Amino acid sequence: MGLWYEETFKGTRLSLEVTDTFFSGKSEYQKVEIFETREYGRALAIDSVFMTSEGDEFVYHEMLTHPALLTAKDPKRVLVIGGGDGGTVREVLRHPGVEKCVMIEIDELVVRACQEHLPTIGTAWDDPRLDLRFADGIDYVKNSDEEPYDVILLDGTDPIGPGEVLFGMEFFRGVKRMLKPNGIMALQSETPMLLRDVFFETQFKLRELFGKVHPYFGPVPLYASGIWSWTWCSDTQDHTAVDEGRAAPIVDGCKYYNLDIHRGAFALPNYVRRGIAAGPQDKKEG
Amino acid sequence: MGLWYEETFKGTRLSLEVTDTFFSGKSEYQKVEIFETREYGRALAIDSVFMTSEGDEFVYHEMLTHPALLTAKDPKRVLVIGGGDGGTVREVLRHPGVEKCVMIEIDELVVRACQEHLPTIGTAWDDPRLDLRFADGIDYVKNSDEEPYDVILLDGTDPIGPGEVLFGMEFFRGVKRMLKPNGIMALQSETPMLLRDVFFETQFKLRELFGKVHPYFGPVPLYASGIWSWTWCSDTQDHTAVDEGRAAPIVDGCKYYNLDIHRGAFALPNYVRRGIAAGPQDKKEG
Repeated sequence: MGLWYEETFKGTRLSLEVTDTFFSGKSEYQKVEIFETREYGRALAIDSVFMTSEGDEFVYHEMLTHPALLTAKDPKRVLVIGGGDGGTVREVLRHPGVEKCVMIEIDELVVRACQEHLPTIGTAWDDPRLDLRFADGIDYVKNSDEEPYDVILLDGTDPIGPGEVLFGMEFFRGVKRMLKPNGIMALQSETPMLLRDVFFETQFKLRELFGKVHPYFGPVPLYASGIWSWTWCSDTQDHTAVDEGRAAPIVDGCKYYNLDIHRGAFALPNYVRRGIAAGPQDKKEG
Repeated sequence: MGLWYEETFKGTRLSLEVTDTFFSGKSEYQKVEIFETREYGRALAIDSVFMTSEGDEFVYHEMLTHPALLTAKDPKRVLVIGGGDGGTVREVLRHPGVEKCVMIEIDELVVRACQEHLPTIGTAWDDPRLDLRFADGIDYVKNSDEEPYDVILLDGTDPIGPGEVLFGMEFFRGVKRMLKPNGIMALQSETPMLLRDVFFETQFKLRELFGKVHPYFGPVPLYASGIWSWTWCSDTQDHTAVDEGRAAPIVDGCKYYNLDIHRGAFALPNYVRRGIAAGPQDKKEG
């Protein structure tokens, strides 16, 4: 008791009281830790940044997954890049129409640690529709000759240091190459309040690639500022056209997401509207 | 540089890097501090709890004020209880139809410190329609024989320790006594994620007093968990019926609020819907 795990982000720091540590290890990529917190249950941190916790993961994983899956036309093939804790593929595989979910995670250690010590988050590891591969998502979308996907979800790390390429145009172009023409891509797109530049730059990059780009918002207490964004992208689909028949059983199993939340999450605060209307301020290829 | 101001709430702690201190004083009620933070501009803390900052105050004050003011029928008389930083009365007084705004703040030191050191938040102190009084809001709503109000906004502190009475039935009954039959009351109602019990108990108390009680949500990074709730209450009005003509110039001057945000904020997450549907778990007069 009395131990605190802290994440410092710019001039802010979130600390969580930790009551037990289950795992601490280092891969060739990063440091991976799983511990028990007093308020949020078990939590995963990578390189001293909170990634997810039992207490708030439902918002993040439901919001990354269901807006895309429920506005896609009969999605059968889904690609998840990142998402080593297993929460995103868990939500994807709750959709009975999904026939195959390929998950590309670069770091096997994250998955193995979460399988053993965060079993309440990744509950779908044994689903036969899951094709889990430990590989570099950037290489995959650039070079794969596999069939394109109906939905692609980017569940990557922050665009700081090694994660920066996951928010770059080259990666986004690869992702689009692997998406069917009527497909939908959704990604976590950072906090609009504390990483405003990254949030807006990401919007402008995506607008160069997709005909329809819609950010949406929800609360994730463990992430810097507590307010998080995801972005829905497509050339052809409608982000408001939820398949209500398919949605009903999905919503039943959600702790956060429902159709009012879906509609409400796409409401843009004035500062976001104005930032997007102002256009790129310092345009550069990322 | 390198100094951090921290707020610990249960097993969570938010720290902000502080680059300068402008004010530190103690009233008969509490300790009041105003300092410069690296990420959020100037911030006010009371008894080591963050109250507001230049960087995030707009969400809180716009969301407390405009949903009530814009769904009220021609509001002329508005009462604000608390709100010593002046942000709430600033937003109230942007409504040209408001003829009188009475503000009851118990602690003169908070107002005086904010007037001097947080001038960007309280910009309406000199408005002749403002009637600022240093008094106990609980006494006022219980004993005042003044004319009732069209809108009452409760901008109080957390219901922990001395603030607990501000979330009690006796206070809420007094507030209702001071509200016109067609009036609207709105209050900050805490974080649904980290103070779930208080959030739900408050909903059930308000439902005993008002025919219509609607919580709504928005991001306030400085408050515990980052996701905050307010609650809209009335016997007769419709929380969705925004006066769009009156709204247009108000929205123009907002950084967060607009009509999509208004509608979206009232979307209830599944865990909130279910908690309300389950009803009071341990009913007691608060």
